[in-house]
Amino acid sequence: MARINEHYAKLPASYLFPEIGRRVRAYQAAHPDAKVIRLGIGDVTEPLAPAIVEAMHAAVDEMGKRETFRGYGPEQGYDFLVEAIREHDYRARGVDIAADEIFVSDGSKCDSGNVQEIFALAARIAVTDPVYPVYVDSNVMAGRTAAAGADGRYPGLVYLVGNEDNGFQPAPPAEPVDFVYLCSPNNPTGTVATRAQLERWVAWAKQNDTVILFDAAYEGYISDPSLPRSIYEIEGAKDCALELRSFSKRAGFTGVRCAFMVVPKTVIGTTADGKRTPLNTLWARRHTTKFNGASYIVQRGAAAAYSAAGLAQTNDQIAFYMENARLLREGLGGAGFTMFGGLHAPYIWLRTRDNASSWEFFDQLLTKAQVVGTPGAGFGPGGEGYFRLSAFNSRANIEEAIGRIKKVFA
Amino acid sequence: MARINEHYAKLPASYLFPEIGRRVRAYQAAHPDAKVIRLGIGDVTEPLAPAIVEAMHAAVDEMGKRETFRGYGPEQGYDFLVEAIREHDYRARGVDIAADEIFVSDGSKCDSGNVQEIFALAARIAVTDPVYPVYVDSNVMAGRTAAAGADGRYPGLVYLVGNEDNGFQPAPPAEPVDFVYLCSPNNPTGTVATRAQLERWVAWAKQNDTVILFDAAYEGYISDPSLPRSIYEIEGAKDCALELRSFSKRAGFTGVRCAFMVVPKTVIGTTADGKRTPLNTLWARRHTTKFNGASYIVQRGAAAAYSAAGLAQTNDQIAFYMENARLLREGLGGAGFTMFGGLHAPYIWLRTRDNASSWEFFDQLLTKAQVVGTPGAGFGPGGEGYFRLSAFNSRANIEEAIGRIKKVFA
Repeated sequence: MARINEHYAKLPASYLFPEIGRRVRAYQAAHPDAKVIRLGIGDVTEPLAPAIVEAMHAAVDEMGKRETFRGYGPEQGYDFLVEAIREHDYRARGVDIAADEIFVSDGSKCDSGNVQEIFALAARIAVTDPVYPVYVDSNVMAGRTAAAGADGRYPGLVYLVGNEDNGFQPAPPAEPVDFVYLCSPNNPTGTVATRAQLERWVAWAKQNDTVILFDAAYEGYISDPSLPRSIYEIEGAKDCALELRSFSKRAGFTGVRCAFMVVPKTVIGTTADGKRTPLNTLWARRHTTKFNGASYIVQRGAAAAYSAAGLAQTNDQIAFYMENARLLREGLGGAGFTMFGGLHAPYIWLRTRDNASSWEFFDQLLTKAQVVGTPGAGFGPGGEGYFRLSAFNSRANIEEAIGRIKKVFA
Repeated sequence: MARINEHYAKLPASYLFPEIGRRVRAYQAAHPDAKVIRLGIGDVTEPLAPAIVEAMHAAVDEMGKRETFRGYGPEQGYDFLVEAIREHDYRARGVDIAADEIFVSDGSKCDSGNVQEIFALAARIAVTDPVYPVYVDSNVMAGRTAAAGADGRYPGLVYLVGNEDNGFQPAPPAEPVDFVYLCSPNNPTGTVATRAQLERWVAWAKQNDTVILFDAAYEGYISDPSLPRSIYEIEGAKDCALELRSFSKRAGFTGVRCAFMVVPKTVIGTTADGKRTPLNTLWARRHTTKFNGASYIVQRGAAAAYSAAGLAQTNDQIAFYMENARLLREGLGGAGFTMFGGLHAPYIWLRTRDNASSWEFFDQLLTKAQVVGTPGAGFGPGGEGYFRLSAFNSRANIEEAIGRIKKVFA
């Protein structure tokens, strides 16, 4: 009795980042004096912007007074935040998203892990490779795949390989799929989809009745104004795409927790016998049944990220991280590395040296330069031979890391 | 293409509380001057305790300074909170729970909706009736049931009927099940399981290799020191039970969002071919893959609920609500109602008058007394003919509601 979900056994024993943590702790234990610089997990390091801090203090005070206390909020998010999102993320870029198409949550990791629930178990899922592991793992856990093969791939998923030839922006698959996960600016490769590439995806999705999950958690890092920040800037995308956004990297909320998903009412799925159903209805049901709203205090902080002061302060933080990225690109280029990304994303995607595997390179970098990065293979077989460095750190640490890497590899 | 999860169509169109909201809004629109008193959703009304407010302000300040900023936290929760939980909720009552058996989350609604994922799709699930709807709905959405029958029950689930004969504390089922949801103090009936009743459940679970989910979200409202607050106070429960706890009702966190689940390493599930697997491993995988930790600021607030000042202040709030419950019991008894609960829980479970259905009674109470409660039928067919009133409100509103109800029904 107490029969378990056996699909979990198909996953490797450890999620990527806990394994990195384990290796770093072991190294630190053996070398207690080593000053390890972490460019691995991709976590922000700058403090919350003053406008956000101020708004959260005000919200805490409201919660401490009977007249202004708030209990359960609307599961989809407070109007003050939803309206700020509509105005700043969408209307300002010519896109009209209705209030009830926005679902505020406690994080994009949750949203991207949960979204597969509204699709059939038999739905055919496509992912890029390399890829953010949650897209794959959540589908394995749901039972949409067999156990991984010798190549590390799960039969049942369609893999779209990113490589140097396609600039790590794979094209739509030839075969039909129900649901595809796209991430741009991309985690892990740091590359970004152009307007033409997104137009191709939308045209293909509409032609094949495929739904796209567009993960735009890093849109705030796009500096070229001609690049789309939202997939809804592409004509027709509201008929075929869901979009994820997060305050984690946009406003330093990795420890604060707030994100949202856009589910236009015009994105339609079908039952086995062809009945058409808006995904918005399904997601609203999921969101209201299994989630109880993001913290009021957190939502006030998120809304403050859209105030004039909040935008200026968080844009400065992004500019600071992107100058780190520029320094990393310059320094690593000087050390002879081939690299991608880092122009519209806080990630730089390196080819390892001397054909090292990505975990070998991880160990080299840790033991020789005391720098932690993320092995490309942790993002799928397509990441083997590559390595992700994040630009999230202090300027001093970035410069120190560049100096050490140059010393070892130049 | 884009095949959807068709199990969602088995659910009624609306979750209980949105339907209540819809009816109340319609009434208010038609009667703009009516002063409606809400004893429905069971949401706290007292402001956050000063000790919690202070701790959250300090945490916001930490997040605003580079030296003390925190990004991603441990998915399972910060040590400072986990240790406070171990000490105050468990060691103080003679129970030893290891740190890695506690999983801090953003709410018990999420935990109780997500926990079914670690069981097989073929697992046989038992629920009480009436019941907190999330237990049922999350299993329907996962595909463990057929469509509801004419009696409102989902074939595939085992229903354990609570009624006046068993004091709304049904006994374990005769047939074997994999997983059973128990809630004590109970939502919605406000009744509480005795030590003897829990001993019977644990003995039965161990004998049948069944796992119990013990939802103790309302344990803080137990005033009789001889009643167990945790199922782990029962010998053997660590071999068969998971436990949910929440800060929502204990510390007024319905809008702040923090809870935790205990998954002892000694609770074991099995694969189809009999391989034994600790549920702790499965839940840790689920929690780290599809969740990214509760907000740091929120966790600091939750930890402050365990400080000496925090305990004193939140206990005062609970005493205030329980005095409301006492007044409700006294007033409703005076008006001739038969009722249950309300002694160790903030809920009073009324039998409706004149054999009214529970939605008929809802409409009567709304239109004649302008008081909102929750129809028992919203908690399952076993709740038909009953009605839940919550003690969460100001003293003035509780007294006003009692006066109005007496006027209509006495």
